[in-house]
Amino acid sequence: MNSKTSPRPGGRSARVQAAVHQAVQELSAEIDRADLTVPMIADRAGVTPSTIYRRWGTLADLLSDVAVGSLRADAPLIDTGTVLGDLQAWAELYLDEMTSAVGMTMMHDVLASNRAEASCQCAVYVAGQIQQILDRGIARREAVPEVDLVMDGVVAPIIYRSLFGPTLPSRAHVRTLVERCFDKV
Amino acid sequence: MNSKTSPRPGGRSARVQAAVHQAVQELSAEIDRADLTVPMIADRAGVTPSTIYRRWGTLADLLSDVAVGSLRADAPLIDTGTVLGDLQAWAELYLDEMTSAVGMTMMHDVLASNRAEASCQCAVYVAGQIQQILDRGIARREAVPEVDLVMDGVVAPIIYRSLFGPTLPSRAHVRTLVERCFDKV
Repeated sequence: MNSKTSPRPGGRSARVQAAVHQAVQELSAEIDRADLTVPMIADRAGVTPSTIYRRWGTLADLLSDVAVGSLRADAPLIDTGTVLGDLQAWAELYLDEMTSAVGMTMMHDVLASNRAEASCQCAVYVAGQIQQILDRGIARREAVPEVDLVMDGVVAPIIYRSLFGPTLPSRAHVRTLVERCFDKV
Repeated sequence: MNSKTSPRPGGRSARVQAAVHQAVQELSAEIDRADLTVPMIADRAGVTPSTIYRRWGTLADLLSDVAVGSLRADAPLIDTGTVLGDLQAWAELYLDEMTSAVGMTMMHDVLASNRAEASCQCAVYVAGQIQQILDRGIARREAVPEVDLVMDGVVAPIIYRSLFGPTLPSRAHVRTLVERCFDKV
């Protein structure tokens, strides 16, 4: 994450970012995304187009930044009492979120920009959520799988099948993916 | 796969497709992809721009079609004598291919177009290759994993980590992913 995309909270820079992100979200709900332009977003946000170009570079980079930002607005992690249950609950929500129209647009926005760090932020953020669930289990003295095993075994198949199909994963399939992570625990 | 993207081989339509695909590949090697335009490709292929628009719709759809087409030009499957060995050899080649500059561009082209069937063709094609390896093992009376388990356990993590990082998978990691598919075989 660099200073371009994470301005100091509360400053002028942060207010500009919030206004521009909100303008993108509002306009995305109102018009076809293919018709979105930087001048249109600037107008809605009350900034000049050059402010947007200077800060985000291109429209694709701006959309990707908004997509990454919306990731962090997630619900708190469900506590079922076991890591298996928590991961299954988390994975089902993650499946719903990523296969929704908003989630699919978000993934495509992140991948369409050439900012490798945007894609990375998604993976790091998701790994962070999983690690929190694992840490709760460790605190309860449960045997838990490694976070990398969960990324490979649960997150990767959900995203791969969402992007490449041939069909979306079912909730039952996702629960099985989580169970497999415990085979060698 | 529809008739738009799979013309009858040998016909005029197939010759146009071959010329346009070749034009895209040549131009991609010569100039920056961001500078590619439909009129430029039409000129190189000796067709009119409207031929391209009529057949492929948009530049993104054309690039995605070329990307899917290049998938099929693969090397034959290595025969090591065991399914474990064959899958490991296949997965290492797949890793090399997909994490190369050409492979990354191909994936981004496929995902950038809104043709869901293009992404699906990739997954179906890869599953077909894996099934061939499994079928050889079945013919040798080996116990083999299900193709879906290999898609989730090997293909998905390779693609997820290539797209979202934070780092590319190592060859050793890919071999481990393949071994895990045999845990319950």
